[in-house]
Amino acid sequence: MDTLEKVDAYWRAANYLSVGQIYLLDNPLLTEPLTAAHIKPRLLGHWGTTPGLNFVFAHLNRVITERGQDMIYIAGPGHGGPAAVAHAWLEGSYSETYPDVSQDAAGMRRLFRQFSFPGGIPSHVAPETPGSIHEGGELGYSLAHAYGAAFDNPGLVVACVIGDGEAETGPLAASWHSNKFTDPERDGAVLPILHLNGYKIANPTVLSRIPAEELTKLMEGYGYRPYTVEGEDPAAMHKLMADTLDAVFDDIAAGLQPMIILRTPKGWTGPKEVDGVPVEGTWRSHQVPLASVRENPAHLAMLEQWMRSYRPEELFGADGRPVPEILGTVPSGDLRMSASPHANGGKLLRPLVLPDFRDYAVDVPSPGTATTEPTRVLGGFLRDVMAANEANFRIMGPDETDSNRLSAVFDTTDRAWNAQILPTDQHLARGGRVMEVLSEHLCQGWLEGYLLTGRHGLFNCYEAFIHIIDAMFNQHAKWLSTTRKIPWRRPVASLNYLLSSHVWRQDHNGFSHQDPGFLDVVVNKKAEVVRVYLPPDANTLLSVADHCLRSRDYVNVIVAGKQPVLDLFGPDEAITHCTRGLGIIDWASTDAGEEPDVVLACAGDVPTLETLAAAALLREHLPSLRVRVVNVVDLMRLQPSAEHPHGMPDAEFDALFTTDRPVIFNFHGYPWLIHRLTYRRTGHPNIHVRGYKEEGTTTTPFDMAMLNDIDRYHLVMDVVDRVPGLGATQAHLRQRMSDARLRARAYTREHGEDLPEVRDWTWSH
Amino acid sequence: MDTLEKVDAYWRAANYLSVGQIYLLDNPLLTEPLTAAHIKPRLLGHWGTTPGLNFVFAHLNRVITERGQDMIYIAGPGHGGPAAVAHAWLEGSYSETYPDVSQDAAGMRRLFRQFSFPGGIPSHVAPETPGSIHEGGELGYSLAHAYGAAFDNPGLVVACVIGDGEAETGPLAASWHSNKFTDPERDGAVLPILHLNGYKIANPTVLSRIPAEELTKLMEGYGYRPYTVEGEDPAAMHKLMADTLDAVFDDIAAGLQPMIILRTPKGWTGPKEVDGVPVEGTWRSHQVPLASVRENPAHLAMLEQWMRSYRPEELFGADGRPVPEILGTVPSGDLRMSASPHANGGKLLRPLVLPDFRDYAVDVPSPGTATTEPTRVLGGFLRDVMAANEANFRIMGPDETDSNRLSAVFDTTDRAWNAQILPTDQHLARGGRVMEVLSEHLCQGWLEGYLLTGRHGLFNCYEAFIHIIDAMFNQHAKWLSTTRKIPWRRPVASLNYLLSSHVWRQDHNGFSHQDPGFLDVVVNKKAEVVRVYLPPDANTLLSVADHCLRSRDYVNVIVAGKQPVLDLFGPDEAITHCTRGLGIIDWASTDAGEEPDVVLACAGDVPTLETLAAAALLREHLPSLRVRVVNVVDLMRLQPSAEHPHGMPDAEFDALFTTDRPVIFNFHGYPWLIHRLTYRRTGHPNIHVRGYKEEGTTTTPFDMAMLNDIDRYHLVMDVVDRVPGLGATQAHLRQRMSDARLRARAYTREHGEDLPEVRDWTWSH
Repeated sequence: MDTLEKVDAYWRAANYLSVGQIYLLDNPLLTEPLTAAHIKPRLLGHWGTTPGLNFVFAHLNRVITERGQDMIYIAGPGHGGPAAVAHAWLEGSYSETYPDVSQDAAGMRRLFRQFSFPGGIPSHVAPETPGSIHEGGELGYSLAHAYGAAFDNPGLVVACVIGDGEAETGPLAASWHSNKFTDPERDGAVLPILHLNGYKIANPTVLSRIPAEELTKLMEGYGYRPYTVEGEDPAAMHKLMADTLDAVFDDIAAGLQPMIILRTPKGWTGPKEVDGVPVEGTWRSHQVPLASVRENPAHLAMLEQWMRSYRPEELFGADGRPVPEILGTVPSGDLRMSASPHANGGKLLRPLVLPDFRDYAVDVPSPGTATTEPTRVLGGFLRDVMAANEANFRIMGPDETDSNRLSAVFDTTDRAWNAQILPTDQHLARGGRVMEVLSEHLCQGWLEGYLLTGRHGLFNCYEAFIHIIDAMFNQHAKWLSTTRKIPWRRPVASLNYLLSSHVWRQDHNGFSHQDPGFLDVVVNKKAEVVRVYLPPDANTLLSVADHCLRSRDYVNVIVAGKQPVLDLFGPDEAITHCTRGLGIIDWASTDAGEEPDVVLACAGDVPTLETLAAAALLREHLPSLRVRVVNVVDLMRLQPSAEHPHGMPDAEFDALFTTDRPVIFNFHGYPWLIHRLTYRRTGHPNIHVRGYKEEGTTTTPFDMAMLNDIDRYHLVMDVVDRVPGLGATQAHLRQRMSDARLRARAYTREHGEDLPEVRDWTWSH
Repeated sequence: MDTLEKVDAYWRAANYLSVGQIYLLDNPLLTEPLTAAHIKPRLLGHWGTTPGLNFVFAHLNRVITERGQDMIYIAGPGHGGPAAVAHAWLEGSYSETYPDVSQDAAGMRRLFRQFSFPGGIPSHVAPETPGSIHEGGELGYSLAHAYGAAFDNPGLVVACVIGDGEAETGPLAASWHSNKFTDPERDGAVLPILHLNGYKIANPTVLSRIPAEELTKLMEGYGYRPYTVEGEDPAAMHKLMADTLDAVFDDIAAGLQPMIILRTPKGWTGPKEVDGVPVEGTWRSHQVPLASVRENPAHLAMLEQWMRSYRPEELFGADGRPVPEILGTVPSGDLRMSASPHANGGKLLRPLVLPDFRDYAVDVPSPGTATTEPTRVLGGFLRDVMAANEANFRIMGPDETDSNRLSAVFDTTDRAWNAQILPTDQHLARGGRVMEVLSEHLCQGWLEGYLLTGRHGLFNCYEAFIHIIDAMFNQHAKWLSTTRKIPWRRPVASLNYLLSSHVWRQDHNGFSHQDPGFLDVVVNKKAEVVRVYLPPDANTLLSVADHCLRSRDYVNVIVAGKQPVLDLFGPDEAITHCTRGLGIIDWASTDAGEEPDVVLACAGDVPTLETLAAAALLREHLPSLRVRVVNVVDLMRLQPSAEHPHGMPDAEFDALFTTDRPVIFNFHGYPWLIHRLTYRRTGHPNIHVRGYKEEGTTTTPFDMAMLNDIDRYHLVMDVVDRVPGLGATQAHLRQRMSDARLRARAYTREHGEDLPEVRDWTWSH
C-alpha cells in the first residue's frame, strides 16, 4: 500500500467501526451472515457527519506522522460520536484507557455493543471519549474551544471540524474573529475545517447553499485563507485532501491563517437510496440511514452490504485486530490525537504560583469605618498572579476589565490584540493575556478550551449579562460532573467567574442591566461541582479568590462589587470568616452570646452594608433588643450537609440561626433562592428574605435598595413586624423608618443623588 | 436653507438636545452663562455613539419625506438613549406622548432634567421611548429584531444601526445571514448600517481594525452590497450620506440587499481633547467626555463651548420651539419614525383567527387506555392557524419543527428559504412562514421583532437548549413588565414557547440534552408577565395552546412531549382542567371524596404517567389506602394568590393538598422549584418532591426515570416511607418495588430497551 492507500484503508476501517457501533450487538466481524438478532433494538446514533469526521482524522494522522506535528482534534459535530470512538480504538488508546474493550474481536464486539446502550457510553463525543475536550451536545462552541486550547500552546495545532449546522449559530459565527486575538509567537495555531455536508436534521444549511464565491469572501472577510476540498470519489478526494493539507501546514508554518472548506456528501459511503428516496447526500442520513433493520429484511441486507463495502476482511485479522498496514499512518504515543495529554488537560496542569494574598489585604484597624473598592484590591493580587504565571493564566472579559476596576493587571500585561494598533491605543498588544471581546460566548468558550487543556483563568463579567452563557455554563458543569466519575480524567482548574457591576450598582444603566439570576442557574447543577461566594468586602474577596484559584474541577461564582464598601474584616479575620463560610459579626451584634431576639442575616456586599446599618439603627432605637448579625460568604453552607459538601449540619445551623427566632435575611439575589436552600431547616418558617424582586430603573444606589425593600429602614420595619411584641410597642419607630424612606426618596427625586447620610453606603456618621 | 442645510441644522439640534439631556438640570437654551448649579450631580449617559445615531436619523428623515417611505429605526447602540429621545421631541411625538414635556423651553428643561434622573426616564433607549422596539441593554439583537419586524411587512424598511461593539457578539454575527430567510415579495427590507466609531468601553472594536477590503469581503460574504460612508467633516459627510442613501434606496426598490458601513469618530463633534488627552475619536468619549463639570470650571467652560458650537440660537426660538426650517425634512404623522405604529405594535395587532381547537381533539372514551403524540395533534391545529392567519403568524425553531412532530404545518406552508433550492429539498420556499435556522438566538430575536411590531408566533425548541436564550428571554420579560405600566404602549401578542423533546425523552441524546432549568429562569421574572404550563396529554396541550395564542403581553412556556402519552382528558374535561389549572384525577384516586391518606401530585407528561402507574400499583397492593391524584397544568397555581395572579388562595390549596397528609409531588423539572412555589403553604413540610436531579446519560426512557427516582416503583416506595404506619407494615411492598427497579434496570442493560411492561409509558395492561 502507498501512503494514501493506507489512509484510505484506515478511513474504511473507521467507517466500518462507526457503522458497527450504531447497529451491531454481535457478529462484529461479519463472520456470519447478519441476522436481526445481531442488531440493536434501539438504533441511536448519527451517521451523517461521521464519514467526514473520519476522513479528516485519517488525513491529519498522515500529517502528524510525517511532520511530527503536535495536534488535537475537535469535532464540532460531536453527535458523530462513533467516529471519535473508532479512532481511539484504532489508535490503541481506547484499549489502554478501557482495557475491557480490547483491540481484538472480543473488544470490537464490546465496542459496538456499549455504544449508545444502557450502561454503556453516550452516543455523542463525551467526556468518556479519549482525546476529546469538546462535548457533542449543544452546538456552536467548537471553534472558541479550539482557540482557547491554542492560547499559550506554541507548537500545537488545533484541528477543528465545524459542522455547517453549527456554523449557523451565533457563538460560532463570532468565533471566526478569534484570529484577531492570537499571537503567532505565543500561541498555537487553529485550523478550522468547515465541513459542508449540506444538511442539518431536516433542512439544508445556509453556508452550503450560498454561492461558492460568496463563501470564499466570507472566509476571507473573517481573515482566513480558504482552501476548498470538494467531491465524493474517494480516490480523488484522498489526493486532493492530502495535497491541500500539505499546503495548509506549510501556511501554518509560515504564520498564515489557512482554513479548509470541505464539501462531502452527508452520510458519504452510506446507502445511496432507501425505500425509493435518496439518502446519501441528503438530510435523511443525519441519524440512522436504515431505520428498520430488525424488522425489514431488505434493510438488513442493505446494512450488510454497506458494511461489507468497506472490505473488513482486508482491514482486520481473524482475531479482530487491525492489520498493521492500515495503521501505517497512525502516530504513536502522545502524538496520537486520541491520547494527547492536551485533551486530558489535568495531566499537564501546573498549579498556579500564588503570592500571599494577605500582602494585598487592606488594614482594618477598626471594622466598618473606612471604605475600599474590593475589585480594585483584587486587581493588585491578580496583577501579580499574572506576572508569576506566564503562559498559565488568562483573564477573560467582555471589555469590562477596566470597568470592573481590575486595571492593575495592565501593569504587567496587555489586552491581546492581533489587528491594527493605533498610537492612541493603550495596553493593546499581540502578547497580551487579558482577553477582551464583546462576546460573553467567546470569553466563556475560550476559557473552557484553555482550562480543559490544563491552564487556569478567570472570567470577569457584568452580573446581568452572564446569563448570556447560561447554556454554556450548564454544559461545562455537566462535563465536570461526568469527568469527576472518570478516573483517567485528571482534575483541571476550576472555572472562576467574577461577577461585578452587579444588580445593586447598575442604578445608572437601569433595569436591563439588573439581574442576579445566574446564581439560580448555577445551583441547579450538581452540588459537587458548583460553589457560590458573596464576599462582603475587599479582604474576604481576596481570600475567596485565592481559594478559588487553588481549586479544581469546580465552577466558582464570586459576586463582588467594584464600588466602595466598608472594610469589615482584617486579613486574618477574613480568612477565618471565609473558611467558616458564614459567621456572626460580633461588633455589630448585641446578643452577647445569649439567644437573640432576632437574627439579621445577610449575603452580598450591598445587603450586608444595609444590614449593618439596620443593626446600628436598632442599637440606637432599641438598645435592649438582642440582635445577632450573621454574614454568609459561602452560599452553599446554607444547604443541609446531605445536599452539598459545604452544607452545614442542622445542629450548627440551628445554633447560628436559632430554631424559633425571626431571621430577616437580606440577600443579594432573588429572595426565593434562600428559601430553596433552607426549606429543610427547622427554623425555616421564621426566615423572611429580602432580595431583588425585579424592581429597577435608572436611579440612585439607595433608591435601588428601597425599590426592593432591602434598605436599612425597611429592615428595621421588618424587625418591628416580626419580633413578637414590637409591633404594638414600636409603632412609632416603624413610622419613623417609613418616613425616613419617604424623605430619602423625595431628596433623590429633587437632587438627583442620594441623601448624604445614605451615600457612600456608610451607616455611621 | 437647502435640503442638506436643513438636515445639518436638524442634526445639530439633535446633538444639542442629546448633550443637554446628559448634562443639564436647567438653563436649557443657554440663555445665561452655564454655572455648576445648572449641571446634574450625577452624569449618566453615553455620548460616544449618539452623534452618529443622530446623523443617520436625520438623513433617513430626508428619505422618508422625499419618498414617502414607511420606515422604522432600530438603534443597536441603544445606550445612546439621548438620541432617540431627542428625535421624538423634535418630531413632536414626545410631547404628544408625554404632554408635560412640551415642545418649548419649559418642556426642553423637563426633557433634560428627567433623563437618567431618579423618577425620570432610563438612560438607554427603553420601552418608555416612543418609536422604539429595541431596548438599549444587552447587546447583539438589533439585526435579528430588525428582520423580525420586516417579515410580512412589505413596503416597510427597517433601518438598523449596528454598533461595532455589538457586532462582536455571537447573535449579531449570525444575524447577518437572516437575508437567506426573507422573501422580497412578502417581506419588508432591512437596511443594516454598521456604525464603526471604532471603540467599545475601553477597547477598539474588531471590525474597525481589520483592513477595509477584508470588511468589504465580509459583508459581501454575508450577501450584502456594502456602501462605505467615511469621514468627519460634516458638510462632506452630509453630501456623501445623502448620495449613498439615494443609491441604497434605489437598490432596495430594485430588490437588492444594500448595507452601509458608516465610519465616523466616536463622540463626533464633542470635545476633541480633555485634560491633555484625546477624547473625540477615542474610547474616552464612550460615556461622558467631560466628567467633572460641576467641580472643574475648565470642564464647565468646555461644556458650554461644546453646546454653543451647535448654534442653538439658530435652531430654537426664544420660546424653545424648534424653528420651522430645521424641521423641513421631518416627516409627519405616522411616517415619523418616532411615531410609527410599527414601533407600538399593539396598535396594529389583529387577533388571530383561531379554529375551534376541540375539532382537533382526541376522542377519549375511557381515560388512560389509548396513547397519542401530543405535539403531533397540536401540529394539526397549528396548520390551520397558519392557514387562517397569512402574514400574521409564524413558527420559529432551530430545525426541530419536524423533530418536534409539528410536521402538519408543512401541509399549508413551507420553511422560509431564500438561498439555493435543490430538487430533492422538501417544504422549502421563499414564501414559507416556518422559520428554521440552527440558532436559537435568531429564532428568539426574529420572533421578538415580529411580535413587537404587532404579529403573533410560536417558538418550538428542544427544552435543554432554550437556555441559549435565557438572557434574551430576561430582556423581553423586562420589556413586557415595563410596557404594562406604560399606557400608550398597546398590548402585544404573548411570546409563546413550546418546549418539546424534553428532559425525560432525551434518553437517546444523553446528558448534554437534559436540562429542565429554563422554568427556574422564567419564574424569576415578574409574576404578571410569566406563565408556565405542563399539559399532560394531547387535549390539554390543545387547550393550553389555544389559551396562549389568545393572550397578550405574557411569556407563556408550554412543556409538552412528542412521544406517545396516555390520553387522560376528553376535550371538555381538558378545558375544565386547564381552566382550573390543576385538579384531582378522579378515576385514578381512591379517596372517594374523603380526606386522603396521601396525595400523589404531578406536573409534566412523564411524571404524570409515572404517578398514574404508581396509583395503579397502590390500588393493586394497598386497596384500602385513600390516594388522591392531583395533576397540575398551570404551575403558577401553586403560588400564593398574593404572589401571582394565577396563585391559589390558601384555603383552596389546603383543601386540595391537605395541610397534614404526605404529598408526593412528581415534577417535570428540578424539584426545588416546587418548594420555592409552595414554601408559604401550611402543608409545605409534608411535600416531598421528586424531579430531575441532574442524573442522566444515553439510556432508555424508563431508566432515565429511575435514575432520578421519578419512576412508579420509587413513588410507591415513597408512599410507604411517608404515610405513617406503612413503613412497618409494608416493608415487603417496599422491597418488591425495589426489586422491580433492579429487574427493570437489569433487563435494560441486557436488552438495550425497556421492559415490555414499562415501555410505551402505559401502566395498564
